[in-house]
Amino acid sequence: MKNNDDLMKILGFIDEIEKLKMVYRQNMTIDGARQENSAEHSWHLAIMALLLTDFASAKTIDLLKVVKMLLIHDLVEIDTGDTFLYDIKQNESKNERELETAKRLFGMLPHDLGSDLFSLWNEFEKRETPEAKYAASLDAFQPLANHLLSNGKGIIKHQVKTRTVIESKKHIADGSPMLWEVAKDVIQKSEDNGLYLK
Amino acid sequence: MKNNDDLMKILGFIDEIEKLKMVYRQNMTIDGARQENSAEHSWHLAIMALLLTDFASAKTIDLLKVVKMLLIHDLVEIDTGDTFLYDIKQNESKNERELETAKRLFGMLPHDLGSDLFSLWNEFEKRETPEAKYAASLDAFQPLANHLLSNGKGIIKHQVKTRTVIESKKHIADGSPMLWEVAKDVIQKSEDNGLYLK
Repeated sequence: MKNNDDLMKILGFIDEIEKLKMVYRQNMTIDGARQENSAEHSWHLAIMALLLTDFASAKTIDLLKVVKMLLIHDLVEIDTGDTFLYDIKQNESKNERELETAKRLFGMLPHDLGSDLFSLWNEFEKRETPEAKYAASLDAFQPLANHLLSNGKGIIKHQVKTRTVIESKKHIADGSPMLWEVAKDVIQKSEDNGLYLK
Repeated sequence: MKNNDDLMKILGFIDEIEKLKMVYRQNMTIDGARQENSAEHSWHLAIMALLLTDFASAKTIDLLKVVKMLLIHDLVEIDTGDTFLYDIKQNESKNERELETAKRLFGMLPHDLGSDLFSLWNEFEKRETPEAKYAASLDAFQPLANHLLSNGKGIIKHQVKTRTVIESKKHIADGSPMLWEVAKDVIQKSEDNGLYLK
């Protein structure tokens, strides 16, 4: 059992991460009323993880670890903001900026909890373990579904080419081959609907 | 391994639950720019569950079960909207309305997944098991922290009495006695700041 100091540190962290609800992404809610934020995006991915385990590449997956990764994977955006996948310039400095935030944020927690979350965040970023590959495939798929469902409200203005989308998303196959088959169909439909450039 | 029909059903469900991002609650984001929605609220609770396990009443907790419960506990609001805790009239018909939605939503999934989520939702609602009590304590605490942090932007206009808040929230002690001690302090500070009526 932890003590009251630990409890107050954890509650301070929980207050701090309210800010992720104010980090907005390029995608829109499907009514087009506002941009999606990184907190609700993380929620969506965590539910996907629960439901798609049977479609993961690896025979055995530590599902709780996947869910933890997905819940925290975007927390670093509290300081850096969301880096748009197709913005080459922004992505050059992304890792360094995010590492600093990870240290600051997870450092707010009692040591064991903080280092556990820091490790999970690192594992997700490296995309080497079965859990990280599966988690990353969900993170890559969800925006594709959102583009098609929202009729491209967030994406059309960026004039992304279909082959750039495919290049950025093909790692879905590492986490889930069947999901990648569906993703290719979704990308094709989005191109047909004019959301990406041929 | 499930088949392609199952995959398409699951992805249909994942598209459907995009709608939870458009279900708005009474609380505000801490910048006061907009109402909090039930998807990001659920994300916040799931992270709380990961961090506060040591403070749960029960010695052993199935953490994955708690996280699942919290991720899905508000999905029924997709059809019913969020029912404000302190609205007595709305709460009279809440259970019936939510049950219908649970059947519709979870019925979209392959049978085993759908009945698993339906059971978890029911377990959360009944608040009898250690996991459900712990999950419910987090669901009850988060709005209290939000009120204080956002300086009552969402709550002041409702003129809720402190004793009503305490009555509605005292079950936090069933899930986590230490969290209830903090909750009472938070409620007192909020009263001192004029967020609740004496």
